[in-house]
Amino acid sequence: MNDTKWTQYFQDRQAEHLEELFAFLRIPSVSALPAHERDMSRAAEWAAARLRKAGVPEVEILDTGGHPLVYGRWQVDADLPTAMIYAHYDVQPPDPLDLWTTPPFEPEIRDGRIFGRGAGDDKGGLLTTILVAEAFATLSGGPPINLVFFFEGEEEIGSPSVTPFVRRERDRLACDFVISADGMMWNESTPSLMVSMKGIAGCEIELTTASTDVHSGLFGGSVRNAAQAMAELAASFHDRTGRVSVEGFYDRVVDLSPADRQEIADVPFDSDAYFGAVGTKPEWGEPGYSPLERLWVRPTLDINGMWGGFQGDGSKTVTPAKSHLKVTCRLVPDQEPDEIVELLRAHAERFTPAGCEMMFRPMAGSALPYAVPRDHPALLAAGQTLRELFEQEPAVVRIGGSIPIAEVFKRELGAEMILYAWSLPACNAHAPDEWYRVDDFRDGAIATCAYLEKLAGIRFHKTSVQG
Amino acid sequence: MNDTKWTQYFQDRQAEHLEELFAFLRIPSVSALPAHERDMSRAAEWAAARLRKAGVPEVEILDTGGHPLVYGRWQVDADLPTAMIYAHYDVQPPDPLDLWTTPPFEPEIRDGRIFGRGAGDDKGGLLTTILVAEAFATLSGGPPINLVFFFEGEEEIGSPSVTPFVRRERDRLACDFVISADGMMWNESTPSLMVSMKGIAGCEIELTTASTDVHSGLFGGSVRNAAQAMAELAASFHDRTGRVSVEGFYDRVVDLSPADRQEIADVPFDSDAYFGAVGTKPEWGEPGYSPLERLWVRPTLDINGMWGGFQGDGSKTVTPAKSHLKVTCRLVPDQEPDEIVELLRAHAERFTPAGCEMMFRPMAGSALPYAVPRDHPALLAAGQTLRELFEQEPAVVRIGGSIPIAEVFKRELGAEMILYAWSLPACNAHAPDEWYRVDDFRDGAIATCAYLEKLAGIRFHKTSVQG
Repeated sequence: MNDTKWTQYFQDRQAEHLEELFAFLRIPSVSALPAHERDMSRAAEWAAARLRKAGVPEVEILDTGGHPLVYGRWQVDADLPTAMIYAHYDVQPPDPLDLWTTPPFEPEIRDGRIFGRGAGDDKGGLLTTILVAEAFATLSGGPPINLVFFFEGEEEIGSPSVTPFVRRERDRLACDFVISADGMMWNESTPSLMVSMKGIAGCEIELTTASTDVHSGLFGGSVRNAAQAMAELAASFHDRTGRVSVEGFYDRVVDLSPADRQEIADVPFDSDAYFGAVGTKPEWGEPGYSPLERLWVRPTLDINGMWGGFQGDGSKTVTPAKSHLKVTCRLVPDQEPDEIVELLRAHAERFTPAGCEMMFRPMAGSALPYAVPRDHPALLAAGQTLRELFEQEPAVVRIGGSIPIAEVFKRELGAEMILYAWSLPACNAHAPDEWYRVDDFRDGAIATCAYLEKLAGIRFHKTSVQG
Repeated sequence: MNDTKWTQYFQDRQAEHLEELFAFLRIPSVSALPAHERDMSRAAEWAAARLRKAGVPEVEILDTGGHPLVYGRWQVDADLPTAMIYAHYDVQPPDPLDLWTTPPFEPEIRDGRIFGRGAGDDKGGLLTTILVAEAFATLSGGPPINLVFFFEGEEEIGSPSVTPFVRRERDRLACDFVISADGMMWNESTPSLMVSMKGIAGCEIELTTASTDVHSGLFGGSVRNAAQAMAELAASFHDRTGRVSVEGFYDRVVDLSPADRQEIADVPFDSDAYFGAVGTKPEWGEPGYSPLERLWVRPTLDINGMWGGFQGDGSKTVTPAKSHLKVTCRLVPDQEPDEIVELLRAHAERFTPAGCEMMFRPMAGSALPYAVPRDHPALLAAGQTLRELFEQEPAVVRIGGSIPIAEVFKRELGAEMILYAWSLPACNAHAPDEWYRVDDFRDGAIATCAYLEKLAGIRFHKTSVQG
């Protein structure tokens, strides 16, 4: 990366900034697990205190009805653009714990990587935005544009409380566009613009076949086995080729244009390295599409968890009476999450074997797919900043993950979201041994300073938002 | 049950005997779980001490290489028959714990039933045999026949160490036949002779699709999902009708004769009550056979446990990298456990989806199926005893469960096994809320005294055993 006036500033303070990131990572703010409710508050308080220390004049922890929201505002000039800085302080559950090299909430640097749950998704990115505000406060007395900080605590559970909160707080959250510190670069050497994200919808399914697990010698072979019935049901969601076999699942999917296919084919992609980093190969999936097309623009269905019966050491000759399944779908335009949930329900009802009681529960937190308009001035400014810093054309990439809030900001605030973040696809987000590069933690801050300065030169035509 | 001279004896001591059973049940002697190794020793010591207290002259705890064996001998007269009394002091794992009304190792009486892990399988039966020896010691100075006590600690894990032990200790274990206190009556009102048991064989299967669980938005839909792959594999073990689809599985199965079918049809069987007791119905299984035929004389395959991916509260959008399956088969003549394991292995190799690494491990502890010769004098004596006590013809029943040791005693000692026990099919053996009737705990002791007296009048032609 080219030197900028920010380079020295962040290099001088790197050890101190890493210390702070470690303190933040040590708070196990797992939004999905009720046992961590207190940790969620601690993480929110930590971020709010750090924003105040950075010099942000208005900082509040706001009640959303769910996990608290950290809000900040630094208003410098009404004629300048206003960017909302989006990040999240919640993290994924850390299990399976035994696959972590070091404990998930005891961060450690190895080989230039910061290991710890939330390092890449998204505490590294969140802290970066605070450090950027502090850098401007230190060197220029304040940021070059107006900033609204929006750090949520429900990203990993689909932002259920945040959506109505944004609707209620439209005035306070007014902005021209959103910069998301939750996102990623395409790889270590390729600056990139992420222009679309998938939506998400899912469900939990429980099958019951008896009032209790029974002795397989007294009942087995004559009554439904809940684990086996679940195997049959779980196997029914795809056909043998890897295509999702839920009726109607593909009905609203917009076909790929030749231009889309070309753009995706143009992205530098080392498939062996990408999949090899997690010890796997792209040997499965919907036929007729490349791995990147499947990841980015084709809808998918994943079994996230499945269980029933005895899981201990040794053997236990039971016929299980209960079994469980967790399923999520990644959605593309123009799929509708609520409609997909109803298709999943109809599928589960149809494919639950006879003799089972089936309980279906939609997953809390769904999201529409989202795409950034290609001509959005803040997207163009991001591209220009990256081009200048890295002296190469940024790759136009997409993401198979979901940031549900993007579509909410667009609908409620009329604000499009630009992803500007330094995590990497291989960083084990949502998996054991999550990491974030030490260099990227510093370079992301430098590049964000450059981006905000670039944005100061742009004037936005406010779009009107319908109530 | 008719009054006998033993009735008063056991009624007078019922409270005290229940106290002792409770003390025994409080020891969590779970043979499958390494964490309970100390409890296994405690349970063995408890049983040995109680045998000594009962008056049994020779009592030892013997090292089998695995869980200890409690051995006792009361030799009264070489001209009298020698019966080995078989029972087991180990119990099944208690999970799922949340389905127990009261904790599994804190026994409690409710509605005339003793609830606790091991109450019916098999600590109630084991203690009964000690109390019977004590009753004879108290009232007659000793038992009416020679007794060898053999209380093992590996029944619930397939008796892996006991088998070589029996082979090594043939002389010490010499006997004419075995009376098993592990077994059951057909129902509360039907005295019964159990004339056959199924064999057992099984395996564990693990599938690996990546080096770590991965983010479903970054990898899902393009790489194999280990949970989904396991669903496909697990669902492949049966066809849609409920017939086992493992190639060769039925090849050695002896066809049912019309006489067998008639004998089974003659057994009083309230199907609604039997299956209704555990909240299920016999609505599934191999076509062409009645539920009792499937349970007793047709081989079955059960998934005992299956798991992969996220099992916590809420959602976690991972594509699981590992999944697990535990399978057991209940076998009938002339199926061979080792051969069945190889058929399971071949099936798993053939049906593991592409892109998965498959690990196959045979289950420790398998058993051949076993049938008692219908003209065995000790079986006839059991029938006569029950006929006299209950004034009705005992039902001839079979059991879908397995007692691996039966076939070992036959092969190594030339001793057939007679099941003479008071547990019931509905007693939740291997399941939460296991129970044993208070009345059966007493009546079983009375009936066992009567049986030993009946056996004293029989002379056995020793069968020669090949070395």
